Amino acid sequence: MTNDLKIYDLVVIGGGPAGITAAAEALSFGKSVALADSHQEIGGAGINTGTVPSKTLRETALALSGLKSRNLYGVDLSLRREVTVADFLGHEEHVKDAFHASVTQSLQVLKATIYWGTCTFLDAHTIRVNLGSEDRKRDPSALGEAIQLRGEKILIATGSSPVHPDVFPFGHGEIYDSDTILKLNRIPKTLAVVGAGVIGAEYGCTFNALGAEVHIIDGRAVLLPFLDAEVSQALVGALQRSGIVFHWRENVQKCIPLESGGVRLELSSGAALTADAVLVAAGRQSNTAKLGLEKAGVKTAERGIIPVNEHFQTNIGNIYAAGDVVGFPALASTSMEQARRAARHALGLGGSAISPLLPNGIYTIPEVSMVGETEESLKKKDIAYIVGRANYRENARGRIIGDEDGFLKLLFRKDDLKLIGVHIMGDLGTEVVHIGLVAMMGNASANLFVDACLNSPTLGMLYKTATLNALQNVPPSEKTCLVERT
Amino acid sequence: MTNDLKIYDLVVIGGGPAGITAAAEALSFGKSVALADSHQEIGGAGINTGTVPSKTLRETALALSGLKSRNLYGVDLSLRREVTVADFLGHEEHVKDAFHASVTQSLQVLKATIYWGTCTFLDAHTIRVNLGSEDRKRDPSALGEAIQLRGEKILIATGSSPVHPDVFPFGHGEIYDSDTILKLNRIPKTLAVVGAGVIGAEYGCTFNALGAEVHIIDGRAVLLPFLDAEVSQALVGALQRSGIVFHWRENVQKCIPLESGGVRLELSSGAALTADAVLVAAGRQSNTAKLGLEKAGVKTAERGIIPVNEHFQTNIGNIYAAGDVVGFPALASTSMEQARRAARHALGLGGSAISPLLPNGIYTIPEVSMVGETEESLKKKDIAYIVGRANYRENARGRIIGDEDGFLKLLFRKDDLKLIGVHIMGDLGTEVVHIGLVAMMGNASANLFVDACLNSPTLGMLYKTATLNALQNVPPSEKTCLVERT
Repeated sequence: MTNDLKIYDLVVIGGGPAGITAAAEALSFGKSVALADSHQEIGGAGINTGTVPSKTLRETALALSGLKSRNLYGVDLSLRREVTVADFLGHEEHVKDAFHASVTQSLQVLKATIYWGTCTFLDAHTIRVNLGSEDRKRDPSALGEAIQLRGEKILIATGSSPVHPDVFPFGHGEIYDSDTILKLNRIPKTLAVVGAGVIGAEYGCTFNALGAEVHIIDGRAVLLPFLDAEVSQALVGALQRSGIVFHWRENVQKCIPLESGGVRLELSSGAALTADAVLVAAGRQSNTAKLGLEKAGVKTAERGIIPVNEHFQTNIGNIYAAGDVVGFPALASTSMEQARRAARHALGLGGSAISPLLPNGIYTIPEVSMVGETEESLKKKDIAYIVGRANYRENARGRIIGDEDGFLKLLFRKDDLKLIGVHIMGDLGTEVVHIGLVAMMGNASANLFVDACLNSPTLGMLYKTATLNALQNVPPSEKTCLVERT
Repeated sequence: MTNDLKIYDLVVIGGGPAGITAAAEALSFGKSVALADSHQEIGGAGINTGTVPSKTLRETALALSGLKSRNLYGVDLSLRREVTVADFLGHEEHVKDAFHASVTQSLQVLKATIYWGTCTFLDAHTIRVNLGSEDRKRDPSALGEAIQLRGEKILIATGSSPVHPDVFPFGHGEIYDSDTILKLNRIPKTLAVVGAGVIGAEYGCTFNALGAEVHIIDGRAVLLPFLDAEVSQALVGALQRSGIVFHWRENVQKCIPLESGGVRLELSSGAALTADAVLVAAGRQSNTAKLGLEKAGVKTAERGIIPVNEHFQTNIGNIYAAGDVVGFPALASTSMEQARRAARHALGLGGSAISPLLPNGIYTIPEVSMVGETEESLKKKDIAYIVGRANYRENARGRIIGDEDGFLKLLFRKDDLKLIGVHIMGDLGTEVVHIGLVAMMGNASANLFVDACLNSPTLGMLYKTATLNALQNVPPSEKTCLVERT
């Protein structure tokens, strides 16, 4: 067993969205980078088990279930009886494979060195990679079972895994977490989802679109509590209308796989629920337990989360962490930006800063997305504001695509009509929110959307409608003055 | 026959997107407004024969033809043999009706007075409305056949109509213009489209999606020449791959309806083409011939276009014109902004200005959209620039929705990396362009998209990818400096 020591400007542990982004950023500035990952395939949860697969399945579900065409045209395009799970997951596999190929290729173009194997710290600058058999085949120079990587700087981007509360006997019967749910070999007739967070809400909607009867169980009584309350309530209404049943203020006290094939859940209220399958979406924990962080002196907090400062530095100066491993919000989008910032700070590249405006995009059906303040956060801060609303059903494209529930809600600061919050529920909401995001990054006020010429018919026009709606809440005498240009 | 004289701050002639917007704007400031329209239904070409119906049919075609699902999932959801034209147009009628109801309602809320009837000028302040029978029923106080409206200011927003070149014997056989094409009672097997402008390209794509064999004939050799040349060429390629045949540098010299039901076109090259139906999309003329403009002294130019200044004032100070009637670009989006500006200037409301950034959104399949400079316009102006590109097929959502051709192209001024041009071809391009539009309105440079955190997976992320691609064309030594924040 040899112990080659290889030296790099930056060693990245974990090849998900955060790790890939950090490596690419450093490489594009001519730095030497090693990326080590234990999964034998690049992409992390972003490509392999999380973001991309779940969103692909969602899109497929929307298309193949005929949900849209049935509502819009009164024509049932559904092929449900003929469509197998393989049909639904076939496109997802294809998308995933294409991603692996393209990410691998772009890292090759940038001349990243990739090691497949599990990593442990030997000290604050040294990582031991226990090489997988695949990697040894690819790199005959690595004769032994392990190599050592020395990084001037090290980035931990190992992601997170689903928490398995003791009450659920994983491994017995139809009990799944978000990593395994895609391996279902049939669409369950009834699906119980434990946890009304992002993952529970998203998969609940997808399986509902696929024709499953979905029950969402949560100990609280609010869906996605970080949303503006109006949006959260509207989303509950939309999901209920689409057939999802919520069991609020309920905890699962017993979970019993049945011989007949289903699963029986006993709830804290005394009620019981039998489902064909259970998805446990009860939070995630950071993948830090096996890293040997104590050797490097890196501290962790509850659920294995690594605390970081605003530069994404851990308590050990040359070691950074980014992505799910640092906790909330644990989205692919924010993970990539955290990693970019960490790499730039670590390597003294300066320049870029993450915008403090982090949008939240939830791929429920309908989508919800937001950036900036909520009505609740503004009330807490005692900031006076004006609300402007626009409904999809009064928007030309909204009407064409047949979204009856969707709406955009803008929050303007009352003093100067600066845009300070954007909230959207509806088709393509995760895209449409970016218009408001970019406006906020440019410090825009209501004038921008009064003056803007937007394509018609588009959902983008909702911004103009909502802005004009907000200005209607200003008396005519003040209005001319308020929209006067400087 | 009585001649009631009614006096208003603003009289609007024409109830399309321009007229409605001007009326609503004036009313929201407490002004008195009369709106007169000859069509017995509100909405103009925007709702009744143009924008909304064509885009609705497009959306329906995409859904019901199974085009998307066939490409994406290898599953043919097509119901073509069973779907009748009524199915395709049923949703369109529904959307149109809903629009009529909502526009009428919002004008009622704003207390607009609407007169149905044809309008002629008596002098620069007075309009005679020859009332239709419907209006007389609704308003018993208008006992006569006509009333007179006096407007302190008058806005002409009467729109435009398709030009009918003499070579086409309209009224005989299957010869249609953009107003009548929606009355087709079956999907033609072959459709010849005369004119490769916006209308020809859009309908060509829609009927192609519906399964027609589409031939587009044009005297030039460029599709939509106002586009960036790279985008125009890419669009031609995409349309050809989808089966559309272009006949460039050809004019129709004879158009002969056949007894068998089709139409024979003889082209300038000597070639001939037989199609089941012909769509003539050879330009539009302003609806000004019957307005009696000479009584008011308002001048017109070729094709009936009314020349206006930057405030949309005609040569007669109290008379304004906006929308299709003033000529290029004649899009619903720009028409509304012109009308808003005209109303504000006319009524001394001040404040708002139209952004000089007018996006162009074309609803071909795939969509194309742009705002700002093209490579060609920059070369003409001798402005140095950097190009950044991002492909849909390398973008997570692009891959999920299966758009293989789409791309975003950003143009940055080389000196200061200001964003000065946005070009997109691909699914939802008319929406996604707005992110760049708002960035440009905020005078953004490349930094904005380097710093931005965008939802994942979204097409919005193309902006970040394209910006990073542009910066790769800058050597590392200069890069730190270029992206340094001020």
